[in-house]
Amino acid sequence: MGVVVAFEEKQPTPQIDSLVGLVAPDMERVNATILARTGSDVTMIPEVANHLISSGGKRLRPMLTLATAALCDYPGEGHVKLAAAVEFMHTATLLHDDVVDESDMRRGKLAARMLWGNEASVLVGDFLLGQAFKMMVEVGSLPCLDVLSTAAAVIAEGEVMQLSAAKDTQTTEDAYLAVIRAKTAALFAAACEVGPILARRGRAEIAACRSYGLNLGIAFQLIDDALDYGGSSAKLGKNTGDDFREGKITLPVVLAFRRGSEQERAFWRKALEQGEVGEADLDAAIAIMRKHRALEDTVERARHYGKMARDALELFAPSPIKQAMLDAVEFAISRAH
Amino acid sequence: MGVVVAFEEKQPTPQIDSLVGLVAPDMERVNATILARTGSDVTMIPEVANHLISSGGKRLRPMLTLATAALCDYPGEGHVKLAAAVEFMHTATLLHDDVVDESDMRRGKLAARMLWGNEASVLVGDFLLGQAFKMMVEVGSLPCLDVLSTAAAVIAEGEVMQLSAAKDTQTTEDAYLAVIRAKTAALFAAACEVGPILARRGRAEIAACRSYGLNLGIAFQLIDDALDYGGSSAKLGKNTGDDFREGKITLPVVLAFRRGSEQERAFWRKALEQGEVGEADLDAAIAIMRKHRALEDTVERARHYGKMARDALELFAPSPIKQAMLDAVEFAISRAH
Repeated sequence: MGVVVAFEEKQPTPQIDSLVGLVAPDMERVNATILARTGSDVTMIPEVANHLISSGGKRLRPMLTLATAALCDYPGEGHVKLAAAVEFMHTATLLHDDVVDESDMRRGKLAARMLWGNEASVLVGDFLLGQAFKMMVEVGSLPCLDVLSTAAAVIAEGEVMQLSAAKDTQTTEDAYLAVIRAKTAALFAAACEVGPILARRGRAEIAACRSYGLNLGIAFQLIDDALDYGGSSAKLGKNTGDDFREGKITLPVVLAFRRGSEQERAFWRKALEQGEVGEADLDAAIAIMRKHRALEDTVERARHYGKMARDALELFAPSPIKQAMLDAVEFAISRAH
Repeated sequence: MGVVVAFEEKQPTPQIDSLVGLVAPDMERVNATILARTGSDVTMIPEVANHLISSGGKRLRPMLTLATAALCDYPGEGHVKLAAAVEFMHTATLLHDDVVDESDMRRGKLAARMLWGNEASVLVGDFLLGQAFKMMVEVGSLPCLDVLSTAAAVIAEGEVMQLSAAKDTQTTEDAYLAVIRAKTAALFAAACEVGPILARRGRAEIAACRSYGLNLGIAFQLIDDALDYGGSSAKLGKNTGDDFREGKITLPVVLAFRRGSEQERAFWRKALEQGEVGEADLDAAIAIMRKHRALEDTVERARHYGKMARDALELFAPSPIKQAMLDAVEFAISRAH
């Protein structure tokens, strides 16, 4: 009897290309706005801002603002400035995060704080926040201002929450979810909510877009967390181990800690709470996670939020932009394979 | 022949009490709003925020919003939230400044960053900025949002400008004025401008209030700069020498450096650019400043801006609140004696 090799139908890897393509003309104008609005006679401001902004981030958040505006047939111009404002809010958060986390690297380049100092990172972040609000005010929609200013406060609250819970291996999954809802998903949600608001859609559609963004944001962060330990595949990315070395408590750790033996818990406490991380410890951490399926289940949890994101869009009629937004969810999750 | 003792008519020291008294009922509501809006389930937020907010700042900036609203007979409620927002913007700036300047003390207490770390100071500052914008949005005046969000960007720009010019003894008086216009006077100006805007006054009155605030802000900062070297009197305050030890270039230094000998310039370079400050150097610095009348002339410059602030209010009819605002200018300047 021969060995039967199952013939797996090859699933095409979900792509984000169609979303990128559909919003490309608008995104060009967002990029021009971003460039124009980082301008200042104080030369350090465009230097620091563009170091990060031009470093190849995916611009996923502004893309969502453009996508939801298109989904809701918004005929105006306001979405371009709001998308740029969303990217500025995100960039400001990254600049401040690097100071808070004392990170050396960001997106494979030296962090701005390593080149210009913590001072510049704090202050240029503040400048970008100020410019973000100026652009929102120029668009002139008070409901959009409400959504985005609330997000700004919630994001900062989430960051402080994370700081308070830092290095605490006892963190529950719920507590962790509360942190990422605030620090990551709130901006995804706001970015998606302003599209239908600008387009003067009804409450149901506004709530649907918000829900899409919120759940996509949670899924996105969970996949990032899994990727930091190599995801569910065996290949390790260039940023593998950053969270581990910084003592960050993420869902893979929460699951592995709870499911682990006393000996394994002692390992996590030593590495994450006391910060005693040796050469071989990252491999050991990944091995413990694999043993308890912590990475697979983190991806599984992400899939759950991804489904909620997809379902939220159900009330919209089929369209290329809707399909591209659904594909984007799959893409976000498939990064972990 | 007996000794003739000149009988000097005793000038009453100008007081800020009448301004404080006139806005007291509104200020109570501002204080309640501040307390309510620093609330968060994340306990570190009210702890850090209130450490600074309750540390006995004069709340001059929110007082100006209340005063200009009263000057323009504003009958509504929006000025209370805008005044609280102005104080939050100011507090956020102080929290971030302490990180940037690596200050140990603030208002005679340990700086928040010494108690909770730089991370908390950065993030709670961001939270307060977010809350400030939320409050402005709640008031719902787009012109006020425009004024305050522009101020936020300008303040950050001024801080970066100061950072770029830091420790540069070649700084000109003009360059220094550009910094304090942005980092200090812009918020005074915005705080004063929103009063007449809320009261739907015309362009002339809005410009007048803005000019009052801007020039009062410049005068206020110049006096602070002089006070850091003991002002024009011989008695030294508790914060004397902070700017000197931090290598900050302020107007007294700019004037003393330009008017000084080569030997004196070498002294300033060594102390401020290289940061080599010995025990006796503050006294030496003050002596050089006195020799060149640098402190007296800084106060004199402040008086010039104070006059502009007073003249700006001329188009308003006499009233107790107007008189109190005029007295406040004198008070701000008289601090240096």
